Amino acid sequence: MSSYFGEKLRLQIFGQSHSEAVGVVLDGLPPGEGLDMKSIDAFLERRRGGKNAWSTPRAEADLPEIVSGVVNGATCGAPLCATFANANKISSDYDALADVPRPSHADLNARVKYKGAADQRGGGHFSGRLTLPLCFAGAVCLQILERRGVRVGAHIYSLAGVRDKPYDPMNMTEADFTNGAFPARDPSAGEEMIRAIADAAADGDSVGGIVECAVLGLPQGVGEPMFGGLENRLAAAVFGIPAVKGIEFGAGFAVTYMRGSDNNDGYYFKDGQVKLRSNHAGGIVGGIASGAPLIFRAAFKPTPSISREQGSVNLRSGENVSLRVSGRHDPCIVPRAVPCVEAAAAVALLDAMMVGGFV
Amino acid sequence: MSSYFGEKLRLQIFGQSHSEAVGVVLDGLPPGEGLDMKSIDAFLERRRGGKNAWSTPRAEADLPEIVSGVVNGATCGAPLCATFANANKISSDYDALADVPRPSHADLNARVKYKGAADQRGGGHFSGRLTLPLCFAGAVCLQILERRGVRVGAHIYSLAGVRDKPYDPMNMTEADFTNGAFPARDPSAGEEMIRAIADAAADGDSVGGIVECAVLGLPQGVGEPMFGGLENRLAAAVFGIPAVKGIEFGAGFAVTYMRGSDNNDGYYFKDGQVKLRSNHAGGIVGGIASGAPLIFRAAFKPTPSISREQGSVNLRSGENVSLRVSGRHDPCIVPRAVPCVEAAAAVALLDAMMVGGFV
Amino acid sequence: MSSYFGEKLRLQIFGQSHSEAVGVVLDGLPPGEGLDMKSIDAFLERRRGGKNAWSTPRAEADLPEIVSGVVNGATCGAPLCATFANANKISSDYDALADVPRPSHADLNARVKYKGAADQRGGGHFSGRLTLPLCFAGAVCLQILERRGVRVGAHIYSLAGVRDKPYDPMNMTEADFTNGAFPARDPSAGEEMIRAIADAAADGDSVGGIVECAVLGLPQGVGEPMFGGLENRLAAAVFGIPAVKGIEFGAGFAVTYMRGSDNNDGYYFKDGQVKLRSNHAGGIVGGIASGAPLIFRAAFKPTPSISREQGSVNLRSGENVSLRVSGRHDPCIVPRAVPCVEAAAAVALLDAMMVGGFV
Amino acid sequence: MSSYFGEKLRLQIFGQSHSEAVGVVLDGLPPGEGLDMKSIDAFLERRRGGKNAWSTPRAEADLPEIVSGVVNGATCGAPLCATFANANKISSDYDALADVPRPSHADLNARVKYKGAADQRGGGHFSGRLTLPLCFAGAVCLQILERRGVRVGAHIYSLAGVRDKPYDPMNMTEADFTNGAFPARDPSAGEEMIRAIADAAADGDSVGGIVECAVLGLPQGVGEPMFGGLENRLAAAVFGIPAVKGIEFGAGFAVTYMRGSDNNDGYYFKDGQVKLRSNHAGGIVGGIASGAPLIFRAAFKPTPSISREQGSVNLRSGENVSLRVSGRHDPCIVPRAVPCVEAAAAVALLDAMMVGGFV
Repeated sequence: MSSYFGEKLRLQIFGQSHSEAVGVVLDGLPPGEGLDMKSIDAFLERRRGGKNAWSTPRAEADLPEIVSGVVNGATCGAPLCATFANANKISSDYDALADVPRPSHADLNARVKYKGAADQRGGGHFSGRLTLPLCFAGAVCLQILERRGVRVGAHIYSLAGVRDKPYDPMNMTEADFTNGAFPARDPSAGEEMIRAIADAAADGDSVGGIVECAVLGLPQGVGEPMFGGLENRLAAAVFGIPAVKGIEFGAGFAVTYMRGSDNNDGYYFKDGQVKLRSNHAGGIVGGIASGAPLIFRAAFKPTPSISREQGSVNLRSGENVSLRVSGRHDPCIVPRAVPCVEAAAAVALLDAMMVGGFV
Repeated sequence: MSSYFGEKLRLQIFGQSHSEAVGVVLDGLPPGEGLDMKSIDAFLERRRGGKNAWSTPRAEADLPEIVSGVVNGATCGAPLCATFANANKISSDYDALADVPRPSHADLNARVKYKGAADQRGGGHFSGRLTLPLCFAGAVCLQILERRGVRVGAHIYSLAGVRDKPYDPMNMTEADFTNGAFPARDPSAGEEMIRAIADAAADGDSVGGIVECAVLGLPQGVGEPMFGGLENRLAAAVFGIPAVKGIEFGAGFAVTYMRGSDNNDGYYFKDGQVKLRSNHAGGIVGGIASGAPLIFRAAFKPTPSISREQGSVNLRSGENVSLRVSGRHDPCIVPRAVPCVEAAAAVALLDAMMVGGFV
Repeated sequence: MSSYFGEKLRLQIFGQSHSEAVGVVLDGLPPGEGLDMKSIDAFLERRRGGKNAWSTPRAEADLPEIVSGVVNGATCGAPLCATFANANKISSDYDALADVPRPSHADLNARVKYKGAADQRGGGHFSGRLTLPLCFAGAVCLQILERRGVRVGAHIYSLAGVRDKPYDPMNMTEADFTNGAFPARDPSAGEEMIRAIADAAADGDSVGGIVECAVLGLPQGVGEPMFGGLENRLAAAVFGIPAVKGIEFGAGFAVTYMRGSDNNDGYYFKDGQVKLRSNHAGGIVGGIASGAPLIFRAAFKPTPSISREQGSVNLRSGENVSLRVSGRHDPCIVPRAVPCVEAAAAVALLDAMMVGGFV
Repeated sequence: MSSYFGEKLRLQIFGQSHSEAVGVVLDGLPPGEGLDMKSIDAFLERRRGGKNAWSTPRAEADLPEIVSGVVNGATCGAPLCATFANANKISSDYDALADVPRPSHADLNARVKYKGAADQRGGGHFSGRLTLPLCFAGAVCLQILERRGVRVGAHIYSLAGVRDKPYDPMNMTEADFTNGAFPARDPSAGEEMIRAIADAAADGDSVGGIVECAVLGLPQGVGEPMFGGLENRLAAAVFGIPAVKGIEFGAGFAVTYMRGSDNNDGYYFKDGQVKLRSNHAGGIVGGIASGAPLIFRAAFKPTPSISREQGSVNLRSGENVSLRVSGRHDPCIVPRAVPCVEAAAAVALLDAMMVGGFV
């Protein structure tokens, strides 16, 4: 298993959907960093389901229990462990599924990989619930980053094909991160997205989308060459979120339609400082932060749990079966994925800053 | 620095464009694996420049010197080191650039990060020449994978917007990997791509493209959950190739336009075996190989070195300057990037197989 | 911080003496391994204090709460997390010590390293209580090793100069591991040791000793060369136990008085099998298991907490002070250290076996 | 295989006794560090054999070829690779040994572990020759440490039972590191040691000894808790030197005869600074540098290659045989091991300083 991440700041995630709790250990946090628990709770609230039309009815308080690593409200240098009780688990939802792997879930792979010993209740360790400790870790890192002038934000770039107003890689401020209840920048796009989710839900179906994330204030020089580049590190973290199937930086895949003369980000002096004429690179050149806004996008597939009929197999009886996944599921996980992407980015970037000696 | 990769099989790359040599150490290879040097040379030949219209005139023999780790033509369990002399280096090409960072190259980042000590001749350690030892490592791993029934291949999916015939994720055989001199599957698409490169070169410009890679025969169960997933591992390796700005698996970004009922890969029994009805996942679910063909695509930006005039700065004089990058450069690196992508995939997958106990 | 260990099996320890709990995450355990909780409790009981004359009066139930990773009594492939509540903490014991670092404790180092933010209650993360989750991890690994025919045991080799009957590196069986209440092999030596502890306690003082550990059934070939050798791995694990100041393998330091002709372990054939004429190497040659019993010894310093008067400083007042450490302490930690050494060895060896493909 | 070391500064060693070359890659060195090649050569000269009565007649120039990572005489941030040609290899010395494993060498283990594919000429990757690249790496690190005020030195603490004047853990200066041709502090002890080596050589035999190493100027706070402690890190590095069978820190094993009141290192104020009353801890408490001199000792076994007759087996014929190891060997490796210990310490400590943010 490999549910850990990081080189100097180590993240170890544990738990299954229906174990006693899910949780995280953060080893290597700088000491003396105050934790604003209200801000952490507010961040987790953005991920929490059960509170609106577009997310799972599985509602849990999702309040962290700080097990270790915090004294007088600040990090003490020892590993920080936080857990979240799995209070509202209904394992019986999954009994019918024991021998019928859900399509595009990890059920069948886990069964084969762990030779029948895998915890398949609610997806076990592959459940989206594991993003809860990731978000907690991210919320802690975000506070530490913020004290160093680094800000991370994200929004829904597109959902079921509906496009939000993208970030401007050349002219961004923290104000661009301000979100309402639904994480779209353009309210009318947001309404259209909510309608697309509702339409899919009405059909017993689901939709996917793209989350765009930006990082402001990252010092030039963060990141290492080759396999230690920021793209490598961010990708390795972001693909830890279930359902991500692609990631691109700056102009991303669109760059393959451009010529070098269009894509190259030239330099000029302004007030004695070297400035970029454009930022198609998304703030990363040679794996290293250029000082310009870092921008990337992650593609999320539609929730695989749908109540529409799908073809599957009964591994016990050896028969083809038709399956409707009941349980409690999001018709679209993209809104709740927005803070998850911020969290993954925060963990990867704080680690990279520590590796580079910036923290 | 972080020019190493891998968990059980460790890859350590070294060298700069103009150092004595570039090279690689592979620590952890299975012992007793015969190395077919002809096959390795043939693989490296696919990456080699200087031999046709669409690549750099920097022509080097690029033959590996095996420094250690091989006895009687087979791996002996000790770390395998191979080096490649940097015979044909013309550092004077870069003298004029000493104080003028090339746009969209790592020059300025390296200068800042290494406090003026970076080797900037030819891009130093950030040079595309470092993909040569990566390809050597990949060629070694490919032979070992092949003996386990795992085959890796790639082609140009698109170049300057010209599309090749994509891999069919449901029906692939090794025959689909057969390449001619130019790595496009559809000869007429290949010709069009070559023309697009020639057109860009004629304009002193460059173009980018997308490389599609497929892996056949990967056993179900390879890969670990969360941060140890195959997407995470492959992305972490592939972003080690300069110029990659995006990666996607299976249906990739296109999945964001699909509904769950379309995207889900259902199961059925055929001859007592569980089969997939589709393979939008690209062979990876929950980070773990499903046994279906693994498919991913990597986006390459247009070569940043162009002979057209670009805006840059003279860091010594403090003046804005206009720059034409002469030197010897590819108008498009995508054809030569094809074996690099295969190599990065091979290293990541052999490592993942070893981690999972499959090798 | 670096409270993690292992290459393929990852151990992450967390907690402070007075935090909510101490605990451990084990990531990478083989799936489907049944956990015999009674056997784990019995192992932890060997480490538990508060029950006899020679250990701390801090008595806690020390029963693990399994947070994740176990389903139906067996490992499920997901990270196993277990915690132990810190029920019986009396922080007021340490109030007086806030500004007076205890000699030969980590207090002053932690204060400097963590810039005043360290949790110094009871030694914080440097407390011997952190060996509790280590022992839990070891107990789990011991069961898995035992199923592969590998047995680990330890005894007190010497305590305050009193010597127990050492293991015979050539002729050992599991029977040599049988321990009574006090972990000495020779009952009369054990009684003498208990007296030495009582004498020191009567003087408000403490004593140290040497723990000898043996491993039977380790397959030839486990371990890697150079920095991956079994000595390196075992030392890196065993020095994770507080108070260890030395480690030696086989004949250890005594080897420096021997000539090669005496020390060399010759070979001979017996019944068609290669046998060793001696085992001064302690079962490890070139970092790799020879198949003979693996034997090592670890030196533990006397408990630094003593009630006799010692010289220290008051960091607030800037005055030299005289200190008596009250609180609840062991006059000798060596008896309780015996299972800790077995646990550290078990974790390191199971990891090494997994790295080498033996598990 | 695991011939790499380090967390932030990565050391990768490669080569076999009779491969083209042996070498090392150092990834993560601080940029802009000038390399004084004369000083490196002088350091390597201390390890070089073939020049006096007490070492192997295998004499090689042992001059490093810098393959990468150095520009204008200073580190450039890219991985530094250096190789040493294996010029003077006489593989025929080993032909007779092909099927007769040398006692207390890794021959038999390597044969089993690598399934017959191991390079056994001269011990292959297990040869003491691999300490040459280690010494090179150490020489580089020593220069970088010295610029930060950290000095490392070692001497022969004992050899065949002959004791040198030990370091004084409380009162040491750089002057204590001054060595003559033979690395003993007390010339008469040195002469006695040389005689002991000559006596053993005359008998076709070999002797071992203990190397004591001290580090001055290490800042308080270097090192991490638990498995990241300085003892763990130093032990993991030092056991990478062949023939080391034990390591102890400060008072080491002798501490097991002391009471807490004797062993504890009390504090007092002097001129407003906290001082230690003693340094039995050897400069490390809780795994972390106390600022006092760091002292450790490593035990080396007698050279296993002896020309006296030993019992072994012929694996091909299945017969017991009598073996005399001819070839070229040191009757005692301890004198040449002294710089190896310094090198291993330097690598581990520079890495620990970088991990802790001290470099």
